[in-house]
Amino acid sequence: MKVVVIGASGDVGRTVCAELSKRHEVIEVCRSSGDYQTDMTDMASLERLFQAIGEVDAIVVTAGSVKFAKLQEISQAEFMYALSDKVMGQVNVVLAGMNYVRDGGSFTLTNGLLDQHPVPNGVGAATANAALSGFATAAAIEMPRNIRLNVVSPGLMDISYERYGKTLKGHEPVSSKIVAAAYAKSVEGSASGQRIIGE
Amino acid sequence: MKVVVIGASGDVGRTVCAELSKRHEVIEVCRSSGDYQTDMTDMASLERLFQAIGEVDAIVVTAGSVKFAKLQEISQAEFMYALSDKVMGQVNVVLAGMNYVRDGGSFTLTNGLLDQHPVPNGVGAATANAALSGFATAAAIEMPRNIRLNVVSPGLMDISYERYGKTLKGHEPVSSKIVAAAYAKSVEGSASGQRIIGE
Repeated sequence: MKVVVIGASGDVGRTVCAELSKRHEVIEVCRSSGDYQTDMTDMASLERLFQAIGEVDAIVVTAGSVKFAKLQEISQAEFMYALSDKVMGQVNVVLAGMNYVRDGGSFTLTNGLLDQHPVPNGVGAATANAALSGFATAAAIEMPRNIRLNVVSPGLMDISYERYGKTLKGHEPVSSKIVAAAYAKSVEGSASGQRIIGE
Repeated sequence: MKVVVIGASGDVGRTVCAELSKRHEVIEVCRSSGDYQTDMTDMASLERLFQAIGEVDAIVVTAGSVKFAKLQEISQAEFMYALSDKVMGQVNVVLAGMNYVRDGGSFTLTNGLLDQHPVPNGVGAATANAALSGFATAAAIEMPRNIRLNVVSPGLMDISYERYGKTLKGHEPVSSKIVAAAYAKSVEGSASGQRIIGE
């Protein structure tokens, strides 16, 4: 299969690329490195990306940022960032990329588990994570040409523990193999409209 | 109790006001009618509202719009409207109103069930509904002074069937009494961080 991974340079992205490149042709897309560059908040940038790459079998998104801030201090702009970057950015990839995915291909988005296991300062993340699960459920029933769409919720990966462990207090780290398997399940399996838990 | 209902003129808002005014002082807030007017996408407008009203025991939001459109045709702007109006608008009410709710008071937000029971053209609604559930879970753990926060998911009400029945094909209408009881449970009960299903 020909698989595009958007957000290939992050911890989750590198894990997914390492796993899928064992069996597939993987095209790495990042903001400023990789085989191609894109800004997923910009539809024109995404259109140029998919025109340059052409038809693919699967598009995986492991990109999207949020701001962590106390509920009592978070500004409208900081909160909105989670919605406009992590949520709208991933939705944009689906809207722009749909016509470039072959019949029976797939989209795999990425959220996280902070809506299920909330932490202090994580209100933007929790909202974005839940939003993407809702999107996956509803978008899957409208995808054309048997294209599947799922969202993977990675746990806190072992390789990310040093960076995020303090923010995600009480979250037990999971092996990056478990997270890689969740993405493989979405890309290589037959599920659609599902939230696949990687922990 | 002194209860503010933002979105008082809609079908859900009128139902909630009728129920809560049996036992409480209800202040009706709308975009252009009611006791007070506000635009909940505008923090300055919300600040003015709460300064004018002063301290209250509960704030209920039954406002928030989304665009219905086919997944294959929806624009970034149409999709974003669900996030900036329904999600960010309700979150703004919490951010602006928090200091005006008395100790042990409550917020009650409103989403809907389209992330659980998706319908064609409902991808923006499903995403917004899920987002607000994630927000409620995470925001509840950070609320100050024992303030509670829940989200009610009203089913398709009998009184709304004529307007929304065609959009929500397959959704069985529920008595508006059931929906009223879900809001009363949030305002008068002791739950927090919950999604209260009104169907």
